[in-house]
Amino acid sequence: MHRTRIRVAEDALDANETIARANREDFDRAGVAVVNLMSAPGAGKTALLERAIEAGLGETRIGVLEGDVQGSYDADRIAHLHVPVTQLNTDPGFGGECHLDANMVRSALPEVPLGEIDLLVVENVGNLVCPAEFRIGEDARAMICSVAEGEDKPLKYPLMFRTCELVCVNKIDLLPHLDFDLDRLLANLEAVNPEAEVLTMSARSGEGVEAFRDWLAAVGRRGGASAARPGSAAAA
Amino acid sequence: MHRTRIRVAEDALDANETIARANREDFDRAGVAVVNLMSAPGAGKTALLERAIEAGLGETRIGVLEGDVQGSYDADRIAHLHVPVTQLNTDPGFGGECHLDANMVRSALPEVPLGEIDLLVVENVGNLVCPAEFRIGEDARAMICSVAEGEDKPLKYPLMFRTCELVCVNKIDLLPHLDFDLDRLLANLEAVNPEAEVLTMSARSGEGVEAFRDWLAAVGRRGGASAARPGSAAAA
Repeated sequence: MHRTRIRVAEDALDANETIARANREDFDRAGVAVVNLMSAPGAGKTALLERAIEAGLGETRIGVLEGDVQGSYDADRIAHLHVPVTQLNTDPGFGGECHLDANMVRSALPEVPLGEIDLLVVENVGNLVCPAEFRIGEDARAMICSVAEGEDKPLKYPLMFRTCELVCVNKIDLLPHLDFDLDRLLANLEAVNPEAEVLTMSARSGEGVEAFRDWLAAVGRRGGASAARPGSAAAA
Repeated sequence: MHRTRIRVAEDALDANETIARANREDFDRAGVAVVNLMSAPGAGKTALLERAIEAGLGETRIGVLEGDVQGSYDADRIAHLHVPVTQLNTDPGFGGECHLDANMVRSALPEVPLGEIDLLVVENVGNLVCPAEFRIGEDARAMICSVAEGEDKPLKYPLMFRTCELVCVNKIDLLPHLDFDLDRLLANLEAVNPEAEVLTMSARSGEGVEAFRDWLAAVGRRGGASAARPGSAAAA
């Protein structure tokens, strides 16, 4: 007898995966690559995005979706650079949600000009825990970790560091003024995610920002080629 | 006809309040004052606690409850100072809970030597969103905000800043090396919480740490006097 077993989708993360796949299909159809950009509060997500956009992304047309509990401070900064930016606030839910999930991103998609961009950078809420738990339909995950936060963060927030393919170590201009051992941070990162690409940089001095810009542009080119991407909705 | 209306407790925050009150009664019975200490990851909660304990709390006997997603790195640091410390990890829940709630704290209470301390400092998970939403039965809330995080944090995470009676501005030794306007941070803080007491300090240089130590000791003396505190279980 042939039997099919269907597991009942039982929790919030299952529902999130379903919606993330729907987002993914929409992004593929539009030929847009998506980066989920995460960090602790104040690690420098917006500043590094500003520097990367100012450095020029070549052919890659970038758009930004800003996730914040409240306000539009970061969106206003990005808008000054004349790239399309959409603000998504999480405060209607439960005193302010501490992360973006696939459904929140989906609710913002009608406001995102997918036809005019190749790369959408989603700046998540500043938080090292929950944003890592929810996929939003992204192609790649990147996180920024500031040297001012100490070397122990990969060990204390392992899911965040494990789930990202790029880790940007920011604010290296502060290294002479901190009791911070960069080698120890890198060893701790290696212990939780030996596969991660690591870039060191400073949004303030500009050092290393081009490598982040190049990484973004390379992900953006994946979006432009999405019609040929195996398994993408556009190719199906 | 006399009618009584009972509103059904309908959400997680209601349940949390109920359990927080039970914790509060236990703390009162033991004569222990409780501080809920919060911040973003890497702002310096543990380092400032270390410095305050090293500076000496006088008659106040302190204990620490360390909340972390994973590991016991901070608890190990505090244990070196020979004060009772209890580790509470949140990782069994949902990929790691991003905050402590009253029930998590309650589950740890059998391991906390309430009879031997006057002051319990609960070091919450590093996060500027959800920890502010859950009371744990504390007497006072304090948060630490690092100047490396930028001046905009009170505006972007208003509940956290609004809910604390003490805001410690840490890492002021870095001010000469940052594009950071302390007056703007203080104005942003004033906008969301004009009542907050503000202390500036540096765990690295030691500047201002005594004021934080004195604040902790003063809260600790409330615990010692709890038998006379109006409305406390011990007074009832």
